[in-house]
Amino acid sequence: MDNGMTLTTEQLAPPGFDFNEEIYLELNRTFSSLSKRCSSYGPEFRACLDTAFQALRGGKLVRPRMLLGTHRTMTTETATGAANHEVALQIAVATELLHFAFLVHDDVIDGDLYRRGKLNFIGQILKQRDPDNFSDRGPDPEHLHWASSNGILIGNLFLAATHQVFARVDLPHPARLRLLDLLDHTMNDSLVGEFLDVGLSSRAITPDINTALEMSRLKTATYTFELPLRAAAILAGLSEEDEQKVGVIGAHLGTAYQLQDDYLSTFGEAAEHGKDAFSDLREGKETTIIGFARATRHWKDIEVNFNNAELTTTQGEQIRDLLIQCGAEEYSRDTIRHHLDACRLSIADLRTNLNHEVIDLLFAQVDQLDNRRS
Amino acid sequence: MDNGMTLTTEQLAPPGFDFNEEIYLELNRTFSSLSKRCSSYGPEFRACLDTAFQALRGGKLVRPRMLLGTHRTMTTETATGAANHEVALQIAVATELLHFAFLVHDDVIDGDLYRRGKLNFIGQILKQRDPDNFSDRGPDPEHLHWASSNGILIGNLFLAATHQVFARVDLPHPARLRLLDLLDHTMNDSLVGEFLDVGLSSRAITPDINTALEMSRLKTATYTFELPLRAAAILAGLSEEDEQKVGVIGAHLGTAYQLQDDYLSTFGEAAEHGKDAFSDLREGKETTIIGFARATRHWKDIEVNFNNAELTTTQGEQIRDLLIQCGAEEYSRDTIRHHLDACRLSIADLRTNLNHEVIDLLFAQVDQLDNRRS
Repeated sequence: MDNGMTLTTEQLAPPGFDFNEEIYLELNRTFSSLSKRCSSYGPEFRACLDTAFQALRGGKLVRPRMLLGTHRTMTTETATGAANHEVALQIAVATELLHFAFLVHDDVIDGDLYRRGKLNFIGQILKQRDPDNFSDRGPDPEHLHWASSNGILIGNLFLAATHQVFARVDLPHPARLRLLDLLDHTMNDSLVGEFLDVGLSSRAITPDINTALEMSRLKTATYTFELPLRAAAILAGLSEEDEQKVGVIGAHLGTAYQLQDDYLSTFGEAAEHGKDAFSDLREGKETTIIGFARATRHWKDIEVNFNNAELTTTQGEQIRDLLIQCGAEEYSRDTIRHHLDACRLSIADLRTNLNHEVIDLLFAQVDQLDNRRS
Repeated sequence: MDNGMTLTTEQLAPPGFDFNEEIYLELNRTFSSLSKRCSSYGPEFRACLDTAFQALRGGKLVRPRMLLGTHRTMTTETATGAANHEVALQIAVATELLHFAFLVHDDVIDGDLYRRGKLNFIGQILKQRDPDNFSDRGPDPEHLHWASSNGILIGNLFLAATHQVFARVDLPHPARLRLLDLLDHTMNDSLVGEFLDVGLSSRAITPDINTALEMSRLKTATYTFELPLRAAAILAGLSEEDEQKVGVIGAHLGTAYQLQDDYLSTFGEAAEHGKDAFSDLREGKETTIIGFARATRHWKDIEVNFNNAELTTTQGEQIRDLLIQCGAEEYSRDTIRHHLDACRLSIADLRTNLNHEVIDLLFAQVDQLDNRRS
């Protein structure tokens, strides 16, 4: 359950733009404003807020960069769009706040203390609670409860902050309502994606390939790809119809991205993707690869060691071979290709409505994914 | 940690109004709209949503009724205010959505499966997960994790829904911004109140009387009293200055209410307040009563059995006697009186700015609290 955190800036930020400095400035402005509103609350909460700010600052800003790059490209020819750059920057930063809220709640639900090898927000709070006796293995349950509760509350604070940004933007009310519709859609998809993820892991929901596919789209694709692209479209003054079409591109792009993530974790070289080899198999992650395999006669051999926390390298390699034999590896490649092709078709379909820079930019993003090896 | 759920309609709904029917209609409209937007998500999530709707329908609508009653009274003379009745109804229902979101997250954090003797949302989900083997004592940890995760996600959905209502109301943007400021203030206070509550219970925050008092105000008073009263003031077209004054009244009223709740649980007749006798002492709740006692020489005798899950009636009565001897009981009564007096002064101060019906209504609310015995 990694919410696309393995995205790298090279892979997804539109080429030719560097918005980092202004994104950081706007992020700092948001922090200052939130800190100020929380200044009366006593030292404990302010320390918690500072820990959250530190954690948030470590993000790679993939979503804000995608939003701003797309918006800039879409508005090279329109005056309306250019005038909306300040608003685009605010919404861009809000997508990062939303991402952080989702990550923290995800970590609460999964009981994770680390993200990409470093203590996450919850891990930091846990360590601060008792620095002398900090242990990430079997921490004091009361301390862990405190840290997780901090995670729920700080996540809520950032969900609220995201909504405040969308609700307050200086636009005519109909445009603001379109942004709020998009945020509503994004929240619903993402929450239900997480709901399916937890349900599949805990067997509250029967695992099958369609549910696994739906989960990937809802949990990651919508807020990571569809949200920034559609927000850019709204702010650039595109029609609702074109906004929807751009959204479809985002959904395909994001689904392809998430499926690739699963593919590379299972079949890629661990040295390249940077995760533990076989961690998805060890954790019993219900990917579409597993969803496919479940319906084949090889499943009875695979399930013996699937979701086995003690999985050895040899057993992992055996499962990998079985996943190739049963056709799941080929199916996964085909599905990724299908989504990338669908993307290209949707982009081509928009050629008459968008300027050629946007078309080039979107194609470049598909090509980046197509060539992704880690 | 009961978020004021012991409020009864008699105690707090402004007398002379019955808004229940229109509140239920608007609540149903909100449910339908949310259901429709979630209709594509598969049966498991829709079942979860229906469970949430059922739980939400059981509320006593104290906050919406207070908001609508106050708004109606404030607008008997103004055309603007009357025109805003539809908006007031939407915001009123949003306060109920917010209340539900807070209750569910509170129950997740406390690990509670019941509220007022009935299975709460989490308890319902847990029971649905495995109806044949349902046990509320030592439930299957994986099932409990599923139910709690549902709680986090459904809480988030209702937090988002609350913000959407505030962000979309059909008002001039400056009035909408005032409502959004109020929501921001409410969210921050309530989250920090819960943060302090968990911190005090788990000893992550040093218990003292000021923190306990702050916790009561932030966690309950703001969203239960200040929010409905200030929202009514904004919608009735009151100036920002008068809105702030009405907010101060709400904060005093809410703090008095919460302190009374703590007082009655500890010193009242269990038969009247309907809670287990001594449950606050058994659970180690850091009330202002305990905060006061901590600073006295009787504390060493009290703490022996404070926060003892096996507390007997005799031990409970001993603690109660010690709390009287050390002056905590008297202190508690004085503090409640102080807040009610402060309320009356603040109301009197507004006499020239508000019509006499509003003044009467606010005084009536103070009198109701003053005469409260359960």
